[in-house]
Amino acid sequence: MNDSEYPSKLLENAVAQIATLPGVGRKSALRLVLNLLRRSEAEVLQFSNAFIQLKQEVKYCAKCHNISDTELCNICSDSRRDNTVLCVVENIRDVMSVEATHQFKGLYHVLGGIISPMDGVSPSDLNIDSLQQRIVTEGIKEIIIALSTTMEGDTTAYYLYRRLNPTGVKITTIARGIAIGDELQYADELTLGRSILDRIPFDSINK
Amino acid sequence: MNDSEYPSKLLENAVAQIATLPGVGRKSALRLVLNLLRRSEAEVLQFSNAFIQLKQEVKYCAKCHNISDTELCNICSDSRRDNTVLCVVENIRDVMSVEATHQFKGLYHVLGGIISPMDGVSPSDLNIDSLQQRIVTEGIKEIIIALSTTMEGDTTAYYLYRRLNPTGVKITTIARGIAIGDELQYADELTLGRSILDRIPFDSINK
Repeated sequence: MNDSEYPSKLLENAVAQIATLPGVGRKSALRLVLNLLRRSEAEVLQFSNAFIQLKQEVKYCAKCHNISDTELCNICSDSRRDNTVLCVVENIRDVMSVEATHQFKGLYHVLGGIISPMDGVSPSDLNIDSLQQRIVTEGIKEIIIALSTTMEGDTTAYYLYRRLNPTGVKITTIARGIAIGDELQYADELTLGRSILDRIPFDSINK
Repeated sequence: MNDSEYPSKLLENAVAQIATLPGVGRKSALRLVLNLLRRSEAEVLQFSNAFIQLKQEVKYCAKCHNISDTELCNICSDSRRDNTVLCVVENIRDVMSVEATHQFKGLYHVLGGIISPMDGVSPSDLNIDSLQQRIVTEGIKEIIIALSTTMEGDTTAYYLYRRLNPTGVKITTIARGIAIGDELQYADELTLGRSILDRIPFDSINK
C-alpha cells in the first residue's frame, strides 16, 4: 500500500471531490464513490454530466434573478400572476419554499444572498439596484420582505426598508409568531412576545 | 412556474442525479446542487470528471481483485509482506479497514460481495475460483476469513470453509467478542456467550 490510505489515486481523487460537498465526510464520501463505481459507465456519465450541463447552460431570469431555462422565468412570464407585488427572497431555494405554500400569486425578486459582514457580503453584492429599478419601471405596489428571521436577515430587511421606503412602495414582511403545531411552553420569549404584540382577529385564522 | 417544483429542468436533472446516491434525499440534493452551482466552471468540471475518470480508468489487481492503478496492487507487489497468508474480505472498503489497523502484514483476497440469496448473489458471482487457485499456485499456508458477522457473512464463511478445507490450508476467522470500550451490560447474549467460550489468556491482551 502506498503512503495514502487509498489503494488508488483515482479513487482518492473521486473521494476528495465528493467530500467537498457540504456535510459529506470522508467516510461517507468513500461509500458514495463505491456506489458510483458499481454503476455502468453510461450511468456515471449521466451523473457527472448533469452538473457540467447545469453549470454551463444555466440561465438566470433577467427580471427576478431566479434560476431559469429561458430568458424570463416561468413565474415572471406567467400572465395569471399579480405583477404588482414582489416577494423579496434570499435565494432560489426560498422561491421554491414560498411556491410550495401555494399562498403567493405575485412575482419574486431573488437577492442572491443576505448582508453578512462576517462572510464579506455587502449590499453591493446583492441584486438590490435592480430591485429598486423594478419598483419604479414595473409599477410595483407592494414588496413583501421574506427573509430568514436571523440577525443577517433582519439587517438586510432593515437595509432594504431604508433604501426602498423613499420610492413610496408599500413594504411588508412575513409574520413572526408561533409555528403551527408548536407548544407554547417551548416557544422562545422573543417570538411569544412578538406574537402577542402582533395578535390577529380570531376569525381570521380559518380564512 | 411549470408543473415541476423546480424552476429549471437542468436544475431538476442535477438534483435527480445527486439524489441517486444512497442516503441523499431530495432536500439535501438541492442543497448540494446549489453548492456546486456557486463554484467556478473549472471546479465543477474537476468535480464531475473525477467520477468519469475513475469509472473509465479504474483497474483491479490481477491477483487480489483490490482496486488499483497498476496491474498488481501496491499490497500484492510489496515484497516485505507475508505472501503465505491471505485475508479474505468482502470488498475494497474492508481492505482499507483492515489496513488501517496496521495489524495484518499478509496479502488480501477481495471476494467482491457476500453470498446473499435475497440480493441474488450466489457463490459463482464472487471471486472464489481464483481464491482456490491462489491457495494452490501461491502456496498459501493460512487464510483468515474476515467477513461481517451477519447471517450473510456467516453463510459465506461456512461456504468458503467447505470449499477450501480439502486444499489442506489452515482456515481461521476473526475473533468475535466484546468490542473494546463496550460495557458488558449492553453486550448481546450471543456475543457475550461466545466471548466466554473463546476466552483468552489474560496476559495476552497487553501483547
